[in-house]
Amino acid sequence: MKTYSSGILQYIPFFYVIWSDDLLSPSEVSVVKHAIEQDGSLNDSDIKTLSNWLAKDKPPSFDIIKHWKQLISNSETKLIESETYPLTSFSQKMVCHYCEACPFNENLKHIEINLGIQPNHYNHLFDVAVVHQKTSDYYRADRLDALLTGKYSLEINSFRKELTNPIFNWEIERDKEQFRGKVLRQVQFLAEKGYGAMAYPEGYGGNGNMELYASIFENLMFVDGSLTIKFGVQFGLFGGSIQKLGTKKHHDQYLTDTGKAKLLGCFAMTETGHGSNVRGIKTTATYEKETDSIVIATPGKNDNKEYIGNALHSTMASVFAQLIVNGKNEGVHAILVPLRTEAHELMPGVSIVDNGYKLGLNGVDNGKIWFNNVRVPRENLLNKYGDILEDGTYTSDIKNPNKRFFTMLGTLVGGRICVARAGLGGAKMALTIAVKHALQRRQFNDSIKIQEDLLMDYPSHQLRLTPAVAKAYVYHITLDHMMKVYSDESVTDKRKIETQVAGLKSVITWFANDTIQECREACGGKGYLLENRFADLKADVDIFTTFEGDNNVLLQLAAKGVLSDFKAEFNSAGFMAVLKLLGSQLSDKLGTINPIYTNKVDKEHLYNPKFHKHAFNYRTRRLTYTLAMRIRDYIKKGIPSYQAFLKVQSHLLTLGKAYSIELAYNTFVDFTETIEDEKYRSLFSQMGTLYALHEIRQDASWYLEQGYLGSSKSKAIRQRVERLCTELRPHIEVLVDGYGIPRHCLTAPIAL
Amino acid sequence: MKTYSSGILQYIPFFYVIWSDDLLSPSEVSVVKHAIEQDGSLNDSDIKTLSNWLAKDKPPSFDIIKHWKQLISNSETKLIESETYPLTSFSQKMVCHYCEACPFNENLKHIEINLGIQPNHYNHLFDVAVVHQKTSDYYRADRLDALLTGKYSLEINSFRKELTNPIFNWEIERDKEQFRGKVLRQVQFLAEKGYGAMAYPEGYGGNGNMELYASIFENLMFVDGSLTIKFGVQFGLFGGSIQKLGTKKHHDQYLTDTGKAKLLGCFAMTETGHGSNVRGIKTTATYEKETDSIVIATPGKNDNKEYIGNALHSTMASVFAQLIVNGKNEGVHAILVPLRTEAHELMPGVSIVDNGYKLGLNGVDNGKIWFNNVRVPRENLLNKYGDILEDGTYTSDIKNPNKRFFTMLGTLVGGRICVARAGLGGAKMALTIAVKHALQRRQFNDSIKIQEDLLMDYPSHQLRLTPAVAKAYVYHITLDHMMKVYSDESVTDKRKIETQVAGLKSVITWFANDTIQECREACGGKGYLLENRFADLKADVDIFTTFEGDNNVLLQLAAKGVLSDFKAEFNSAGFMAVLKLLGSQLSDKLGTINPIYTNKVDKEHLYNPKFHKHAFNYRTRRLTYTLAMRIRDYIKKGIPSYQAFLKVQSHLLTLGKAYSIELAYNTFVDFTETIEDEKYRSLFSQMGTLYALHEIRQDASWYLEQGYLGSSKSKAIRQRVERLCTELRPHIEVLVDGYGIPRHCLTAPIAL
Repeated sequence: MKTYSSGILQYIPFFYVIWSDDLLSPSEVSVVKHAIEQDGSLNDSDIKTLSNWLAKDKPPSFDIIKHWKQLISNSETKLIESETYPLTSFSQKMVCHYCEACPFNENLKHIEINLGIQPNHYNHLFDVAVVHQKTSDYYRADRLDALLTGKYSLEINSFRKELTNPIFNWEIERDKEQFRGKVLRQVQFLAEKGYGAMAYPEGYGGNGNMELYASIFENLMFVDGSLTIKFGVQFGLFGGSIQKLGTKKHHDQYLTDTGKAKLLGCFAMTETGHGSNVRGIKTTATYEKETDSIVIATPGKNDNKEYIGNALHSTMASVFAQLIVNGKNEGVHAILVPLRTEAHELMPGVSIVDNGYKLGLNGVDNGKIWFNNVRVPRENLLNKYGDILEDGTYTSDIKNPNKRFFTMLGTLVGGRICVARAGLGGAKMALTIAVKHALQRRQFNDSIKIQEDLLMDYPSHQLRLTPAVAKAYVYHITLDHMMKVYSDESVTDKRKIETQVAGLKSVITWFANDTIQECREACGGKGYLLENRFADLKADVDIFTTFEGDNNVLLQLAAKGVLSDFKAEFNSAGFMAVLKLLGSQLSDKLGTINPIYTNKVDKEHLYNPKFHKHAFNYRTRRLTYTLAMRIRDYIKKGIPSYQAFLKVQSHLLTLGKAYSIELAYNTFVDFTETIEDEKYRSLFSQMGTLYALHEIRQDASWYLEQGYLGSSKSKAIRQRVERLCTELRPHIEVLVDGYGIPRHCLTAPIAL
Repeated sequence: MKTYSSGILQYIPFFYVIWSDDLLSPSEVSVVKHAIEQDGSLNDSDIKTLSNWLAKDKPPSFDIIKHWKQLISNSETKLIESETYPLTSFSQKMVCHYCEACPFNENLKHIEINLGIQPNHYNHLFDVAVVHQKTSDYYRADRLDALLTGKYSLEINSFRKELTNPIFNWEIERDKEQFRGKVLRQVQFLAEKGYGAMAYPEGYGGNGNMELYASIFENLMFVDGSLTIKFGVQFGLFGGSIQKLGTKKHHDQYLTDTGKAKLLGCFAMTETGHGSNVRGIKTTATYEKETDSIVIATPGKNDNKEYIGNALHSTMASVFAQLIVNGKNEGVHAILVPLRTEAHELMPGVSIVDNGYKLGLNGVDNGKIWFNNVRVPRENLLNKYGDILEDGTYTSDIKNPNKRFFTMLGTLVGGRICVARAGLGGAKMALTIAVKHALQRRQFNDSIKIQEDLLMDYPSHQLRLTPAVAKAYVYHITLDHMMKVYSDESVTDKRKIETQVAGLKSVITWFANDTIQECREACGGKGYLLENRFADLKADVDIFTTFEGDNNVLLQLAAKGVLSDFKAEFNSAGFMAVLKLLGSQLSDKLGTINPIYTNKVDKEHLYNPKFHKHAFNYRTRRLTYTLAMRIRDYIKKGIPSYQAFLKVQSHLLTLGKAYSIELAYNTFVDFTETIEDEKYRSLFSQMGTLYALHEIRQDASWYLEQGYLGSSKSKAIRQRVERLCTELRPHIEVLVDGYGIPRHCLTAPIAL
């Protein structure tokens, strides 16, 4: 067998790895070229030979490559994955086999680092003994967790410790009554510890901390979905409506007891006949001057309140109804209505029926509620944005009824962030179980191996799980940031954040559902057993796509927000101005799209956040512009605006998604830049890149249609996604551990 | 207001509809042009004016179009959707308003038919009173059902009548013991009626009818998933293993009792440690010459049989084990092993443990089984493909152990078709409920309307449900055909059908899961209630992606089948020949891709099955060719074949899917051509087109990357998909009724 000089020989494993992969971009060629030129151990002839082997247009022949492989195999060198520079060390040992001198070569180390070559890229390529490493310890899970929990690390960790209390032990629950009882006790336990009142003002048992509240809410998903939702209904929706729609008299009377779960309440908004159309609800609240009271009535058969969580345990409800004062409909308002006596008997005129078994969340007592002329004092109107004065006249600081309605609904935004957080928590749980299973479970093998291969070492398995693992990080950072902005009292106009959250809630709850399903399938039959938790996660998270606003409706809301440049209502007056603005911005963006750009496949470029940001921004702008043009044309042709919007419905949905993806990525990149430890910053930026390339890839058909991506770039992105998944393989367990799911919550036998 | 001559006026509603939609392809322009030229009621000036309004590059101004609309609105004509030619009649009435003479114009009728203009395209465009039609009666559901049930219509309908028996009443089942008892009684009931033995030979209570068996199997999904699966385990898997792997002595002894459910059995193949890798199972069946018996043993902790359906009710199992004769492993064989006595006590050495609660299918008694040296007579070996002779030597007609293994597994193909059928049944059920709900439920509206809009009239809702409704037809026809070929005794080599079914099972069970989820979401909160059936459908069908072969594993099997040109094993000898063949075929195909073709956006072309077939065939060929080239290169570089296949895993999955989509479409088109009634043939061909365009659209990024589709064509396809959904809107209820789900099975309150 032909051999080479020791100078060339030391490069053989590198060249074999490089060429067997067929993925050498110009920037990577230059890394290798540079290293060779710097390498003092090479003579001119060596350099010439090696350089010849780097020509992309004239690659080494199959025979040469095969010969390299034989040289490597015949050396009987052992590959030790845990070494600091495994491939450089491997090369060195191989040279030792063939030659007398075999020093460690710094230039090889340089290539190994800069090309990001990892043992799992090549350990299967050589027929040599491999000392495997299931998981790298390069990163630490607790550091990742600390980055995610941020300034509330201490509080969140102490909360997680509370979850060790046996009251939170996970068990299979099939009977709804028993399950509901258990969840009620859990909610009461948390209330006693002060977690329920977390977001309320200081005088009422809390410390006004919505950010921490949202984190706790997500962490509850590691215990159980029903607990999370009942907790949210009691403290977030019912308590939140008192806090945000009521005034001091309501706070003084109810808020402390609500936070302690001494007063149990529900949030009665949705009606059977009107799921997503809150403005169209039919329940009436008519002010009766003679008695100075408000009469709550359910007019028709389908106008009852529906799916109301906590309906069977509550003694009070925040009821949303059309407020009628002096015969005039003043729009939707919330009124506190007692449902039951202290002895838990229904109040006169109130009827409540159990919603029965649901697909999931059977630990939450959902019910239907009817009101047959139920009379409550005038004071029960939650009167922050609209009030009835003593003289029986209606008053409001917000004169425009439309604006008033949206201001009141704006208080729901916090709930939407929480739902998305809960979905995310479910996805993290599923990913953690699936990844840990894939690091134990073996299936099939090469005939020469004794053990079957780990599931996690299959490329298809990496591709199923890794992008989702990275996305969960991106969405975590994004939602955390949204809550921070939302709870910032100095920002009074919440319309922008409302648009943003509407889109993110949709995108993230869908992501959660898809991820949980993928994880279930990735665990095969094991994933189907109740004990392994996917069943409940899947069933509970499913409805997150529907409640707190149906995703399809919310995406349209987000798109309309974008379209009207964050104005509350799309109107033709502002429309032309917006259009003009968009048109000019877009032409700027379009200017940069040239053939060199659309076919740039360099790693440097593809991994550069500037490229990702540009691609996302271009998409949002372009979709907004074309959408606006289409609507304008329809309107010019005399088509009524409502119909015009119907005609562009799928365009609206596309824009809503595009906008949300861009928003999430930008938020994540901003966060990544603040990470001080370079090692972790680089990991986060790798996850950001995977997120971005995976998302661009998902919508490649659009980018190709627009001419934004050329064929070769589109293909290169696909390959980079696969490669990034492989690159993250050694860290995958640490990444899921970084979600910080407490050990005592990870009860799934397959995750142990 | 400017008016027109009566000749022009009659065309105004048509031109308004055409231009408001902006979707006028050259072939459509020519339809209108032709009609105008033929129209004797027009003078030369009229013809000139109308022709000018047809120029795609110089469309009528917004003002003109808006003026048309005002003319229409001011005419106060009523639009009556149920008229035979609603737009032509509408035009006529409008002319009556403005002019004295207003005859019915045959040329307009011609345009209305040929452009496929339907009331739901334009009823929202004019501000006129509309007499709505929720559903068209142009097609009849029973005719569609008859086309789907084909030659077994009578038998299937009589089977459906059996389902009215109260034993099949749907109820919420939460307790597994009670549920399992109920399902067992249902299975016994069906067995007594002769349905269990359906596929067995005549002497054993059946009539060898696998096709009818598969249809019945699917219909059982309308009752309950657990019933379907337990039925399949008992008669299809356990009984099927006796029928297909056993010989006459086994048939005589067991088959009649099995068909009558007097002998309950299970199919013990899967092991805890080996889900998809059947060849790697560890249970041993060692022949002991002294006692002329076979000893069944579970060697290790994870080698027990797992998820075995019917495990708690059975008295016997078909156990798959490594057969060892005279110390030599002869590979996997099936052996009948008694599990319990007549008193239902476990046999010595047999341990069975309940698998407990699962995500779904809780009416099926799945369990784990261990064998501690359980001895059975030699005769219990199911010996069709391999036998132990009286002298204790092993013999088989199939010398190659590999081939023997695959021949035995080939008998599983029928089960895979049935699983796909069952998934399809679940999807049909979900679609029927979601469509019926969308035809009753109203949400939001135009401010001028009194009623809110029907969900089904939202474009986004149409886009969610309609392609799936059509796909269910395509997959039904495909699976029916597959079962016909599979059960054709004259085809002895089943390898081709095995490849086909492996791919189709994956694609169709994923389709089923996605569809059920989409339907759940499309029904909002209502869809989340157990009574509305999505919960069980979703939970039961979920595991179909995993059992009878994990979808990802099966797709790779399909792709390998394609790759090796249907040779059982991929080997390097045959490889070059296959490659050469593919290369030459591919260059033929490539020859036809020219710029005119890649940008052809004409309706005629886009709706032409030739285009669809070409697109699908091109994709399969191209993926096969590039895959083969990649593998060849890896192997030439010295990478072991097992590793090379790992490296192309996602390519394999893509090919597996592409192949299956092509197969389904071609099968459907072949069937469509056999429909005699032109009216129904045209409906089927419309559904085929929707299927094809939707699938091409799903993979548009690939087609664009290849240069097979140009931007404009890709966009035109997207528009056509939306338009086809609108075109099918009037028939959507008839289409789901055509699935033939018995009224008594449609218990979901929202579907009533």
